[in-house]
Amino acid sequence: MSVLVVGSTALDSIKTPYRKNPPLLSSSASHAAVAASFFAPVKLVGIVGDDFPKRYVRLYRRHGIDLEGLQRASGKTFHWAGEYEINMNNRRTLATELGVFEMFTPRLPAVYRQTPFVLLANIAPALQHHVLDQMRRPRFVAADTMDLWLNIALDDLLKLLRRIDALVLNDSEARQLTREDNIIAAAKKIHRLGPKYVIVKKGEHGALLSAPAGMFIAPAFPLEKVVDPTGAGDSFAGGLVGYLAASKGPLEANLKRGMIYGSVVASFCCEGFGLTRTTRVTREAIEERAGQLEKMVRF
Amino acid sequence: MSVLVVGSTALDSIKTPYRKNPPLLSSSASHAAVAASFFAPVKLVGIVGDDFPKRYVRLYRRHGIDLEGLQRASGKTFHWAGEYEINMNNRRTLATELGVFEMFTPRLPAVYRQTPFVLLANIAPALQHHVLDQMRRPRFVAADTMDLWLNIALDDLLKLLRRIDALVLNDSEARQLTREDNIIAAAKKIHRLGPKYVIVKKGEHGALLSAPAGMFIAPAFPLEKVVDPTGAGDSFAGGLVGYLAASKGPLEANLKRGMIYGSVVASFCCEGFGLTRTTRVTREAIEERAGQLEKMVRF
Repeated sequence: MSVLVVGSTALDSIKTPYRKNPPLLSSSASHAAVAASFFAPVKLVGIVGDDFPKRYVRLYRRHGIDLEGLQRASGKTFHWAGEYEINMNNRRTLATELGVFEMFTPRLPAVYRQTPFVLLANIAPALQHHVLDQMRRPRFVAADTMDLWLNIALDDLLKLLRRIDALVLNDSEARQLTREDNIIAAAKKIHRLGPKYVIVKKGEHGALLSAPAGMFIAPAFPLEKVVDPTGAGDSFAGGLVGYLAASKGPLEANLKRGMIYGSVVASFCCEGFGLTRTTRVTREAIEERAGQLEKMVRF
Repeated sequence: MSVLVVGSTALDSIKTPYRKNPPLLSSSASHAAVAASFFAPVKLVGIVGDDFPKRYVRLYRRHGIDLEGLQRASGKTFHWAGEYEINMNNRRTLATELGVFEMFTPRLPAVYRQTPFVLLANIAPALQHHVLDQMRRPRFVAADTMDLWLNIALDDLLKLLRRIDALVLNDSEARQLTREDNIIAAAKKIHRLGPKYVIVKKGEHGALLSAPAGMFIAPAFPLEKVVDPTGAGDSFAGGLVGYLAASKGPLEANLKRGMIYGSVVASFCCEGFGLTRTTRVTREAIEERAGQLEKMVRF
C-alpha cells in the first residue's frame, strides 16, 4: 500500500565543524519521502519555488515518488541555513527564508485522498489538520512535530493529537509537551492526549515506542562518523511508515520492525550531507544493516 | 565461581530535589558487591572506620559477602555528600571526607588471591594495580573508573588498561580518555590501549559493548521514576561480573547477557536511596525484569 507524505520541501545550507555546503535538498518531507520510498510507493505533498533545481525533481522521480501533489509557485523555495557544533548534537539556525512556503496550503489531488498510510512530517499543525481534513478515513496516521510548534501553535497541535494514531517526537519535545522530565512518564502523559502509539526519538540513543502492549526499545545503528544528522529524524519516520505500508500482519509487530528500518535509513542519512548518502542506498544495503542491528541487540 | 570486588565502602549523604537523606551505605564496592551477590559468592576488599554502622555489616552478611578483606581502622568511614539536579543526571559534590580511606592499602587475605573473577570498582588506579599485584592469574578482570582519575592519575590508569580484560566507563569518561567525541570511535581507541572488551555506560540510554566479534547494545530498563541514580553504574558492573562468574560457556555471550542483568540490578538501585531498594530485591524479581527487557528489544 502507499504512503502520503506532507511536509516541507526545502533547500538547506548546512555547516558543520568540518564542512560548509551550498544549498542542498533536505527538509522534513524530502527526507521522509525518500526514506519511505525504499519500502512503498510514496505520494508527496509540498511546495517549491521556480528556483527549485530540476535535478531534485529527478531525484524524487528516481525514487518513484508521485509528484502530483508537489505545488510549484513563483518565488523562492524555502531555504534554511544552520550550523552544527562539534558534538553534532547541538545546532543553531543561521537563516530561515520561507519563500513560497509562507503561502503554502496543502491541496490533495483527488487520487491522494484515499492513501491508507499518512505521514504528517514536521510542518505547522494547522497544515497537518488541513491535510487530514481532505483525507478519506486513512488506516494509519503518524505525525511528527518540532519545538517551534509547541511554542507557537500548541492548541492546534493538541487538537491534532486526537486525530492521529502515532506521534513521533524527540525526547526534548516530549519533555516540553508534558512538562515531565522522565521520558517514560512523558510518553504515558502523551497517550492521554490522544495517540495510541508514542514514539520518542533519542538521536544516537535510538527510539522508544510506547504502545498498548508495552514498550519497545529500538537502538540507533552505531556510526563511527556522523557527517550531517539533519533529516535523520525525518528519515526515521519515513522509513517507519513506509515499512508499515508495505507490511501485512499485526500493526504493533510491524511498528517495532518499522522502527528498526527507520533507524537504519536514518543512519545512512547521517553519513552524508542532505540526501546525498540516502539517495545512493539500496534495499539490499538496508537489509544488511537491519540484520547487523538485529545481531547487536540479540543476547 | 566467586568474584573479588575492591573499591570504596563509604557512607553517602544524597540530596535530590525531592528528599535529603542521612548518611546511607552507598559507594562503588558496596553497590558492586551487593549486585554481584545475586549471582555468585563475593569477596569484598575495602576499608571502614570504627563508626561504620553494624547494620551495614549485617547487610553485607545477609548477601553472603565474605568480609575477611574488609579492613577496620580507627577513624571515620569515607563520607561523600552530593546533590542531584532536577533532571537526576547532573550532580555536584557537596563534601568529600576521606577519613580512614585516605590511608587505605588493599591487602588481600590469602584465600582471596585465587578468586577467578575480579571487579576493580571505582577507586584510585594505583590501588587497583596493588590488588592485581596480589592476585594469582585471575580468569577475568574488569575495571571501572571515574573522571577524577583521568584528571589526576592518567598514567596509572593507562598502565592499568594493559592489565585488564574489560574496561567499564561512562560515555563522558570515554570521550575524555580518548579526546574523541563519537562513542563508537572512542571505544575503538580504548581497545588500542589494552582492554579486549570496552563497555560504555550511557545511564538511562543503556550501555554498549565493543568486543572482537562486534558490538552489543544493551538497553537500560525503562523506569518511570528515578529516586536516586547513585551507584547505578557500580550495580551494573557488579551484576555483570557476578553473572559472568556464575555462567558457563563462551565469555562473549555471557558478557552480553551479563550486561542485561547488570542493567536490571542498576534499575532496582535507582528506585531507592543508597542500597535500600537493591537489598530488598530477589533473584526472581531480577529474572522477571530481565525477561521484560528481553521482550522490549525483540522484534
